Amino acid sequence: MRQLTVDALNPTFQKVQYAVRGELAIKAELLRDKLKEPNNGLPFDKVISSNIGNPQQKGLDQPPITFTRQVAALMEWPDLANLAPNVFPKDVIQRAKELSAEIGSIGAYSHSQGVPFIRQSVAKFIAERDGYPSNPNHIFLTGGASAGVSLLINMLISSPKSGILIPIPQYPLYTASLAQHQGLPIPYYLDESKEWSTSVASIEEALEEAHKEGIIPKGLVIINPGNPTGALLDEATQEGLVQLCEKYSLVLLADEVYQANLHRAETHPFTSFKKVVAKLQSPVPLVSFHSISKGVSGECGRRGGYFECTNFSEEVIALLYKMVSVGLCPPLAGQIGVDSMVRPPKPGDESYELWKKETDTIHAALASRTQLMAKRLNALPGVSCVDSPGALYLYPQIKLSKKARDAAGAAGKEPDAFYSLALLDETGICVVPGSGFGQKEGEWHYRLTCLCPGVDEYVGKLEKFHRNWMEKYGEE
Amino acid sequence: MRQLTVDALNPTFQKVQYAVRGELAIKAELLRDKLKEPNNGLPFDKVISSNIGNPQQKGLDQPPITFTRQVAALMEWPDLANLAPNVFPKDVIQRAKELSAEIGSIGAYSHSQGVPFIRQSVAKFIAERDGYPSNPNHIFLTGGASAGVSLLINMLISSPKSGILIPIPQYPLYTASLAQHQGLPIPYYLDESKEWSTSVASIEEALEEAHKEGIIPKGLVIINPGNPTGALLDEATQEGLVQLCEKYSLVLLADEVYQANLHRAETHPFTSFKKVVAKLQSPVPLVSFHSISKGVSGECGRRGGYFECTNFSEEVIALLYKMVSVGLCPPLAGQIGVDSMVRPPKPGDESYELWKKETDTIHAALASRTQLMAKRLNALPGVSCVDSPGALYLYPQIKLSKKARDAAGAAGKEPDAFYSLALLDETGICVVPGSGFGQKEGEWHYRLTCLCPGVDEYVGKLEKFHRNWMEKYGEE
Repeated sequence: MRQLTVDALNPTFQKVQYAVRGELAIKAELLRDKLKEPNNGLPFDKVISSNIGNPQQKGLDQPPITFTRQVAALMEWPDLANLAPNVFPKDVIQRAKELSAEIGSIGAYSHSQGVPFIRQSVAKFIAERDGYPSNPNHIFLTGGASAGVSLLINMLISSPKSGILIPIPQYPLYTASLAQHQGLPIPYYLDESKEWSTSVASIEEALEEAHKEGIIPKGLVIINPGNPTGALLDEATQEGLVQLCEKYSLVLLADEVYQANLHRAETHPFTSFKKVVAKLQSPVPLVSFHSISKGVSGECGRRGGYFECTNFSEEVIALLYKMVSVGLCPPLAGQIGVDSMVRPPKPGDESYELWKKETDTIHAALASRTQLMAKRLNALPGVSCVDSPGALYLYPQIKLSKKARDAAGAAGKEPDAFYSLALLDETGICVVPGSGFGQKEGEWHYRLTCLCPGVDEYVGKLEKFHRNWMEKYGEE
Repeated sequence: MRQLTVDALNPTFQKVQYAVRGELAIKAELLRDKLKEPNNGLPFDKVISSNIGNPQQKGLDQPPITFTRQVAALMEWPDLANLAPNVFPKDVIQRAKELSAEIGSIGAYSHSQGVPFIRQSVAKFIAERDGYPSNPNHIFLTGGASAGVSLLINMLISSPKSGILIPIPQYPLYTASLAQHQGLPIPYYLDESKEWSTSVASIEEALEEAHKEGIIPKGLVIINPGNPTGALLDEATQEGLVQLCEKYSLVLLADEVYQANLHRAETHPFTSFKKVVAKLQSPVPLVSFHSISKGVSGECGRRGGYFECTNFSEEVIALLYKMVSVGLCPPLAGQIGVDSMVRPPKPGDESYELWKKETDTIHAALASRTQLMAKRLNALPGVSCVDSPGALYLYPQIKLSKKARDAAGAAGKEPDAFYSLALLDETGICVVPGSGFGQKEGEWHYRLTCLCPGVDEYVGKLEKFHRNWMEKYGEE
């Protein structure tokens, strides 16, 4: 019997990289365990996981939306409506009854594309958002957006020369899925000097480069609002991108999971690609992804989301249905979470006032924290930071001196990973180095979430750490 | 712009077949819609989905375990413990408090391998079941067993010549995952004449055949209790299979999701492969899969399960962790469902009596339905059916006459699919043809679940249909 070693396994697995839960996050968990020991000698009393957009995790503790959880509790144990009738608002009881009539037990497999009734709700939500119709039969409920992205990338990679255009910096799900499914990333660069904007020209350059290398481009990934950048696309750019997909026969993969996280909607509003494609009457095949993990919902643990296919033939829809049917169905807890997200309480409903207060509080806290963190990071020597108008993150650039880069090299680390590890060791704050998202040669960044309560104390730690660092390693 | 057609997509997607939710199931849904129309002209008043082991679905309505749902409701909305304190048994409140202290909000991502505390509970459950220790760090909680199976098959396929031994008949998840991940199935046949037994000799024959074709065997899939066969392996056979894996350096993939569905445990008990490997002190790498979708839990919609790795190096465990981290985490509703399954109420707990009554009822109903259905199917001309000692299914063999086969050919269908479609059209009962699971050349079967209440009426429909069929098509 030979021992099972990594060499004997699928080589694509070794190529997969996912820094959001990589070295830094693993070390943070070890430190969290160590903190429980007496006399642990650590210079901090808590580990703060700023590496992942996980609003409800311990220590961040963003409260869930009460309406969502009340409906979910009734779906888990419908007898509660009789056993504790006065505990639930009337609209919650009504909603749970309506869902139960459609779904039956949430312990049963649903349709593999998701409960038809909930897909109809999603279609109405999209139609109201955009002013254009949406077909529930072309909507797939998923266990979070990631599952859908992985499936679509898997579908588009038809040969080892197939490539997908991805922004740099990007959310590493894209490169990880491409590595797993043996496709090639075609990187295009976002412009940090213009609030991380996307330009058609830079994508055309990337296409030309890919062409030279014999790579066949199959799709274009756009993350809007951006991750890790928080950037918002304007409609003119979106139109240009759709026309580009038309010109090069690309499938447009629009990651729109942060569409509800807008901090300055007056100047940086969100427009869906579905609306742009519909308005232009473009034939571009579009898949747009949404999720209950972000927004004000923050229900990461439910694993819920959807993708909508536009300009897909029935034949391709049937192929997707077959593939998702092998996995049986998305989690029902996630599906009813999607229903709550797309059908929140309306003015006049018993739950409305509380829902409004809860969601307003989350929006306001995120916007003010983001702004304050960006301002104070920008005031630090050697740091520049675009003040994100959307999503949950900041992606500051840090200048790292030769001395710092040499020290990193001696430790066998990328300079930004070396910086991030030091930050974790000294403050307990866990961020993700820019090398996990991609950046221009010779530039260094890190991504951190804007979810930590007690933001003043939190930024204070970042500042103190950075000033000590600059003292130790200098500016040049 | 070229239209997006199936030809331009990943060719592996076209090869994937999953009959459990295939042609028959899709037609059943259309008939269910048609039933709602007045004067629909259908010869039945309900569609019965016997194609899939989905106990809680509408029409079957196996009730969920109250304890599981009460804990889940409290996890959804923890305030309920204060707002309606008398509604919940004390052990339920205690359990929810314990889980909340460990997990925090179920709206947060957990550790990508699953909540550490729940993995500890699973390890205890395994250790108590087998009498051998289990390592929680080598357990991965999953969104149902399917997600884990797909991942492990993907991992083992290291080249286009990699193959995995799969039983015939098999649950089609295995061939579907192999098609998607570009591996080759190496079929070995179960012996219907000996209660669908598994023999080491038939696997060695299959290995020899594979060797001739240049296929490199990487793993052996065993489904115990069997799906679709319901067969139980005896320990001596299991020992022989482990030794075979040792001899040929195969990873053993043990699908044990039906381990709690035993109808004649005195003569057909379940022994886990973990226990056999531990007892033999074998170095064989083993992955065993379990799920909350089957057993008495029947919580398909929660999407919960786990796999335990035995004799895997830390390096391979780290590789698996990285891969699951890209998908973030399994659904929390599924994870707490796993906790309820592996830590049910104990004698003396307030919930125990009800839990005992509920689970006894489910076990007894399944056992008596299975036995009655097998007996009456066996009494039909041209039908023979192994009386399954486990799982949720029967897999009767049907003799189909030349006239029937010719009619099927004229309709462009496999003979067993032709039979199953006629059954659906005439009775509303949806089963899956044997061609979806695999069978010997010239033999025909179908799989049906033993979950339908009102079994007498149900079997009556099957009998009437079959007798009419025999009248129409004859025996030879």
